[in-house]
Amino acid sequence: MNSYCNFVIVGAGNLGTRISIALKDTGHTALQIINPNKEKARILSEKVGGSYGVDIEINNKADIVFIATNDDSIPDVVKKYKNKDLLFVHLSGSTSMSVFNPDMENYGVFYPLQSFTADVDLDFKNIPILLEASSAANYKILESIACSISEKVFKMDSDKRLKCHLGAIIAANFSNHFIALGEKYLKENELPVEILHPLLDEMISKIKKHGAEKAMTGPARRNDLISIQKHIEILKDKPDLQKIYTFVSDNIINFYRKSNS
Amino acid sequence: MNSYCNFVIVGAGNLGTRISIALKDTGHTALQIINPNKEKARILSEKVGGSYGVDIEINNKADIVFIATNDDSIPDVVKKYKNKDLLFVHLSGSTSMSVFNPDMENYGVFYPLQSFTADVDLDFKNIPILLEASSAANYKILESIACSISEKVFKMDSDKRLKCHLGAIIAANFSNHFIALGEKYLKENELPVEILHPLLDEMISKIKKHGAEKAMTGPARRNDLISIQKHIEILKDKPDLQKIYTFVSDNIINFYRKSNS
Repeated sequence: MNSYCNFVIVGAGNLGTRISIALKDTGHTALQIINPNKEKARILSEKVGGSYGVDIEINNKADIVFIATNDDSIPDVVKKYKNKDLLFVHLSGSTSMSVFNPDMENYGVFYPLQSFTADVDLDFKNIPILLEASSAANYKILESIACSISEKVFKMDSDKRLKCHLGAIIAANFSNHFIALGEKYLKENELPVEILHPLLDEMISKIKKHGAEKAMTGPARRNDLISIQKHIEILKDKPDLQKIYTFVSDNIINFYRKSNS
Repeated sequence: MNSYCNFVIVGAGNLGTRISIALKDTGHTALQIINPNKEKARILSEKVGGSYGVDIEINNKADIVFIATNDDSIPDVVKKYKNKDLLFVHLSGSTSMSVFNPDMENYGVFYPLQSFTADVDLDFKNIPILLEASSAANYKILESIACSISEKVFKMDSDKRLKCHLGAIIAANFSNHFIALGEKYLKENELPVEILHPLLDEMISKIKKHGAEKAMTGPARRNDLISIQKHIEILKDKPDLQKIYTFVSDNIINFYRKSNS
């Protein structure tokens, strides 16, 4: 393989699109875009080049095939393309590398730890990419491609990757949910959600410097039961939110009691 | 009053320090720094000027007196300085303006919606300041001072301010807590917490553009019960975290079920 690779993408959704664009922009060559919805495949191939189709055979000039489907479909794709020569990787945080066994012989995982929702350009340079491969030779190929698009490349086995993914869900998805609950509460009280933005910026900035445990503030952190009781009282007409407020506040109090003791 | 004021600060903690520095840097004049710990008062007066002390009378040349103590102490400070001439304000999100009644006649609230933890310089320009005053004339004074240090000044009564504060706790403190839980889980599994930073940056960037509800991703958002079950299984040796994971995932599923229906 040259330092630039010929790649095939199976799955032209958000992740497939973002990774293809990042690869193309770095000088790699798209050979084929394969997707169940042909129109989506065509749109992506227009952006990054390569032929496209729904049920085409994989070009055996490919240096690497990226399976960028949703997690549930990965086993079916593996079964379908059963191949002992080409190098296949999936891009999933929570799917074990053993999904390729025994249908493939050259395989690995190429997992970018980032959420790909909207149709937003993303700079891959800072996105951590977690790699695993079936052999040292295959790992070298993955590493060379990953390092060409990102400065943060990690070697990580399936068990650790799954734990990393789980930690990321707790940290990012769950915190996003509480920001959504806070925003909803403000909207219901005709307050502007933008009023939270400087607070969120400052929070992230402190977390990056000192870690979230040290950055923590608020009544539950101070074990200020009077303020907590006042808030629970205000939420009496919102029993769902009241229950969550109580649960999380208790959890915070216990968390810092344990780390202080 | 000129456009620049002479101010007195009661309370030389973090909030008192930050607000004094912001006022001084904008051209206002510190007359006095009053604090139960004299050494702390001295340190702040060295930074921003003015005399300092523990039990001194308030200079009647003051245009405004900021009560920057913790919330519990505000009623005592009001009783102690009982005054019908000078303008007093507190800086608390969750304390009603009525705390000044009937001991003062000119009063108000000057609440910067930001968390002041570590000894970190903060640019007040973007910090929302929520104002309330006992009269239109007093409001004008507060508005002029607030607008001199921040571009985001809001008029807000005590009831709304309390709700705003509660929304901010849910959005910022609670999300910080889940980031702390995610970080802790990564550390326990010898994974680097920095791996989360690009994810958190992207999350905040999406939230600011589209709101947190639209920015939401992850297995609970997709109602992906298989992944959730897998995560609950992985957490079997961490019953506390497992309980939280289950509670929050259920809550997310219900939240989006309601907003989709």
